[in-house]
Amino acid sequence: MTDTVEFYFDFSSPYGYFASHRIDGLAEKFGREAIWKPVMLGAIMKETGNKPLSYQPVKGEYSRHDWERLGRQMEVPWVMPDPFPIATLAAARAFYWLDDKDRDQARLFAKSAFATYFGEGRDITAAETVADIAEPLYVKRDDLLTAVQDPAIKERLKRETTEAIEKGVFGSPYFIVDGEGFWGSDRLWMVRKWMAGQRW
Amino acid sequence: MTDTVEFYFDFSSPYGYFASHRIDGLAEKFGREAIWKPVMLGAIMKETGNKPLSYQPVKGEYSRHDWERLGRQMEVPWVMPDPFPIATLAAARAFYWLDDKDRDQARLFAKSAFATYFGEGRDITAAETVADIAEPLYVKRDDLLTAVQDPAIKERLKRETTEAIEKGVFGSPYFIVDGEGFWGSDRLWMVRKWMAGQRW
Repeated sequence: MTDTVEFYFDFSSPYGYFASHRIDGLAEKFGREAIWKPVMLGAIMKETGNKPLSYQPVKGEYSRHDWERLGRQMEVPWVMPDPFPIATLAAARAFYWLDDKDRDQARLFAKSAFATYFGEGRDITAAETVADIAEPLYVKRDDLLTAVQDPAIKERLKRETTEAIEKGVFGSPYFIVDGEGFWGSDRLWMVRKWMAGQRW
Repeated sequence: MTDTVEFYFDFSSPYGYFASHRIDGLAEKFGREAIWKPVMLGAIMKETGNKPLSYQPVKGEYSRHDWERLGRQMEVPWVMPDPFPIATLAAARAFYWLDDKDRDQARLFAKSAFATYFGEGRDITAAETVADIAEPLYVKRDDLLTAVQDPAIKERLKRETTEAIEKGVFGSPYFIVDGEGFWGSDRLWMVRKWMAGQRW
């Protein structure tokens, strides 16, 4: 079995978006697979007493500037979406529904959802929009629209979020390598060292 | 006049402590001088709605683990101090009092204060302790104890903190290079690029 690195994120998390451009390449470099895990950051923040960055005075303004700056630095498309943040239930449910059938397809969908929201600035809250995103991946609209209302899929996302909280996840992105947790896209250097066996 | 990089921190900030081990070397590499600016993070957090990390559930536990891990990784002495966090008024006032007379001496004092609190775990709240820290630098105890009660020095620290808030400082450490702000010890790589002229 391939070793993994767990990648927790919310589709509405800018730093999750930036990390999503790096995590697969980084994992592959060390013969690992990145396991993508969208979670409901709102539920996690309720548990841990955090507030979305953009609701915080000064820090929120800094963050907006930082996201633009990071986009330019990483040469990753960046458009500050409006509305922001959003509830990403539909996208996250669609992800797990696809993931159970085909992990690669789910990952492509996730990248496309991120690109639509943060690369184009298009609101991805609505299930109809999520269906638009999945369609080019040969996912039938009706199947997806039914799936995101399926009680089992709803329950699945809740469970993934609860399990993430139990593992100590409190923000997005959050990475776990062999039980060791790392918070933030700024800590990919440490994730890399950990995967390389440099553990201190 | 030498170009500078402003280094804002609170003596009670672990990430400020870690950054303090890097900022001078980094600045010198680009022919700049790091200008150390202790501020009252408590006052800043009141303004910006933040709470100390260690008071936040889950995130607080992560932080404690992260500080230990960073200490080992950076090979910097680390003892989780108790009490933590503390009010660092006396240390910050002593710093500005020394800084007006001799910038190098003030910086040595700052390093020693950080080392006492985070390297040895000794509480540096009391002015008497701050006097102990300054004594090996040929600073007379009585002079220091008088200075930290001087209304002008008290006012100075308030003004520095207010000015920091006006410049957008909302956490510790925070760096400003030619007007561009960077938050966090994890962003020294970006501070470096900015000083190297790689601005995007």
